[in-house]
Amino acid sequence: METHFEAININEASLPERTAKQISKLIMEQHLTSEDRLPSEFELAELLNVGRGTIREGVKLLVARNVLEVRRGKGTYITQNPGEIPDPLGFTYCPDQLRLAMDLLEIRAQMEPWVAKTAAERATEDNLKALRETCAMVEQDILNEQDHSQSDVRYHTAIATCTQNLVVPKLIPIITHAIKLFVSLTERRLKMETLVGHREILDAICSKDGERAANAMGQHIEYNRVMLEEYRREPPGGE
Amino acid sequence: METHFEAININEASLPERTAKQISKLIMEQHLTSEDRLPSEFELAELLNVGRGTIREGVKLLVARNVLEVRRGKGTYITQNPGEIPDPLGFTYCPDQLRLAMDLLEIRAQMEPWVAKTAAERATEDNLKALRETCAMVEQDILNEQDHSQSDVRYHTAIATCTQNLVVPKLIPIITHAIKLFVSLTERRLKMETLVGHREILDAICSKDGERAANAMGQHIEYNRVMLEEYRREPPGGE
Repeated sequence: METHFEAININEASLPERTAKQISKLIMEQHLTSEDRLPSEFELAELLNVGRGTIREGVKLLVARNVLEVRRGKGTYITQNPGEIPDPLGFTYCPDQLRLAMDLLEIRAQMEPWVAKTAAERATEDNLKALRETCAMVEQDILNEQDHSQSDVRYHTAIATCTQNLVVPKLIPIITHAIKLFVSLTERRLKMETLVGHREILDAICSKDGERAANAMGQHIEYNRVMLEEYRREPPGGE
Repeated sequence: METHFEAININEASLPERTAKQISKLIMEQHLTSEDRLPSEFELAELLNVGRGTIREGVKLLVARNVLEVRRGKGTYITQNPGEIPDPLGFTYCPDQLRLAMDLLEIRAQMEPWVAKTAAERATEDNLKALRETCAMVEQDILNEQDHSQSDVRYHTAIATCTQNLVVPKLIPIITHAIKLFVSLTERRLKMETLVGHREILDAICSKDGERAANAMGQHIEYNRVMLEEYRREPPGGE
């Protein structure tokens, strides 16, 4: 199918913006991937019939949006996940981070049991291998008393990958964004539960038991919610 | 609470990138909104102790990420929804748009009945007023034979706003992204169903009937899925 979504331009009028759009189109049409070097400024300028300065501005926009990356001494390349940026929903700018964490947990409670169930039903052997590995990474981080927020997000994303749905692995890192805040708020109390909870979810998915995976995930998130609720009522050291 | 998520830098090393981060921090700490003009290049250069050229580069990065916008003849302002960008998950770069649409529908089928139920339970009078208005906008677009994909996304986002959850209204435009493709694929056949389905969801939410809202939304999405499935089996005009 040839149809593509039309990207909505932030600033329809500007020349660098239109150039960025044309370069994006080129990337899509030629199916360029992270292995591919972008054609040179000179070639692009010829091809798109604009000046090299404009090409440079357009490229900068696409770098800022994580479509392109400059590899020192090697040239400009397509990124691994073009267009995906850290914190795409601007959570950094949300003034009430505790409420944000609660609202994210509400969504996780809705989504993730289904994700776990679907993962159990559809996971391939390769998926399960990756899942076991990320589960072990979280355990190692916790046992070494290291920050496990990143490996934790990776574990939940590995579960998402088992669903074979293209979008779920992109959504999970967004809604598990709060784990980082969460880990620092509730600290030690949750670590044991995380170890046990993650293991139980892993076992259920590996034995292809969808119901049990959904229940284990539901409990894991509910426990997190209760902990955060407690924190909200009585922050350590009083108000 | 003062804690903020640390934004992950795409390019930790570059000076413009660090400057962009510091400007972001300034925006957060001073709670600047879309009403506020960013301090001048000169002031920022003084404040952050870097050259004006670096400030300019940093500002460009934040414009590309939709945190700042340049209003002609007025200066640089904070955007309405800082950090939110069109197509944040890079769907534009997905080569198989039909599969993307199916996978998005799978997620919608999971999320949106719950969103509709929660909307019915928590909507304020103001929410309901806005919801009725967007519902009418879709109807008008359909009756005028105009493209209703944008107003359709707005209707589903208005339902999301009724949940009082901070994140749901940010997620819904992402997972309803496919509507645009969808409208063009299935054209006329869906229009009547959209009118009736949207009305039924609206009525259920306005009468605070959560179960009925969830069912109506579930049916609406299921109908969409069946249509897309049919399209996939037999694209008009053959393979």
